[in-house]
Amino acid sequence: MTNKETQKNISKAVIRRLPRYFRYLRELIRLDIARISSKDLSERMNVTASQIRQDLNCFGGFGQQGYGYNVNSLYVEISHILGVDRNFNAIIIGMGNLGRALAWNPLFEKRGIAIKGLFDIDKSIIGSKINDLTIMSLDFIEEFLKSNNIDIAVITTPKSVAKETVEMLSKFGIKGFWNFSNAEIDLPNKDLVIENVHLGDSLMALCYEIAKKTPTQSVSEE
Amino acid sequence: MTNKETQKNISKAVIRRLPRYFRYLRELIRLDIARISSKDLSERMNVTASQIRQDLNCFGGFGQQGYGYNVNSLYVEISHILGVDRNFNAIIIGMGNLGRALAWNPLFEKRGIAIKGLFDIDKSIIGSKINDLTIMSLDFIEEFLKSNNIDIAVITTPKSVAKETVEMLSKFGIKGFWNFSNAEIDLPNKDLVIENVHLGDSLMALCYEIAKKTPTQSVSEE
Repeated sequence: MTNKETQKNISKAVIRRLPRYFRYLRELIRLDIARISSKDLSERMNVTASQIRQDLNCFGGFGQQGYGYNVNSLYVEISHILGVDRNFNAIIIGMGNLGRALAWNPLFEKRGIAIKGLFDIDKSIIGSKINDLTIMSLDFIEEFLKSNNIDIAVITTPKSVAKETVEMLSKFGIKGFWNFSNAEIDLPNKDLVIENVHLGDSLMALCYEIAKKTPTQSVSEE
Repeated sequence: MTNKETQKNISKAVIRRLPRYFRYLRELIRLDIARISSKDLSERMNVTASQIRQDLNCFGGFGQQGYGYNVNSLYVEISHILGVDRNFNAIIIGMGNLGRALAWNPLFEKRGIAIKGLFDIDKSIIGSKINDLTIMSLDFIEEFLKSNNIDIAVITTPKSVAKETVEMLSKFGIKGFWNFSNAEIDLPNKDLVIENVHLGDSLMALCYEIAKKTPTQSVSEE
């Protein structure tokens, strides 16, 4: 069984890999596969079997010699560790193109996260609807947060106002931030959690790989 | 000077960190800071100074004892290694909410990438405009790629058609894919490069951290 103690000992690197296990296990459940060996899982995931055994051993180990992993229990356990079974509530701050794209995105629902409010400061869009939600004025955020239990704020504001937005929201009790603003934000206290998404970093990693395969004339091998 | 040989020896882990250096250096340039010690950079970036020295030594080392790093040359060099100075061309396939959000996003321009075409199969949106570009029918993609030199396809299609889309585009010569579809795609050949963006993984990592800080009753410490 997972308990607080075990959770504390899982390294960040393993945690970063867990969502990937989660995705593959969900796929296996969809395919009606009830158990899988570390070897089969390693072929599907393109990771070594020993890496898989090591990772999954970190939180107790679910595999049995000669049987493999029980897909469903592993899925349930990883969901639990990742907090996917916790039904968090979220709001989105900044309803530009990215905020809108996220508001429509099924990824929240898939992970048990309910979007409870959409906020902006632009009067021309306040009052308009996305799905069942009406975009509200950020002026009402304090009031809204008093009567709604919100765990996560998705920050899709411009970079220039992201820091003050996070500070304000943390004063009103929000503890988790999913930050798309590209601002580097030092959190005001240790109870808070921020996850920064730098799409540009991912794009640069891609450019690097392409540049490596198609050298310019100045760095050509010929 | 960077050459093909040095590039080959940089580990994936370092490459993953380079975009972050790139961002901080750009910020320093904006602040008119011409040189910086590894200690100062380490405080800004919240990384150890020895990590910084180790990372930047990987490609020759730009620091001088007692002087620190020349911000501008380091920026230029890292841009070059990352291929940011290469002026790649890209297209976006799938003009749903995420495709639209990306089409508007300044991150491409910032990294020297020009969006040259937007494609979809939905007749109700083909012909409509985003910025200066008209959404085109995917039926014309082969023709389009014959007369345009495209390096990167951004895949924002539904998951179910992502694999076939990548296979088709690779037949028409595209070598780089920025994949937002959540599909795991095995590339048909080794000349191709794919960078998968799993926003859900990032969201789950956030949920994990929140769950760890706010245990449920069943795993409570009390």
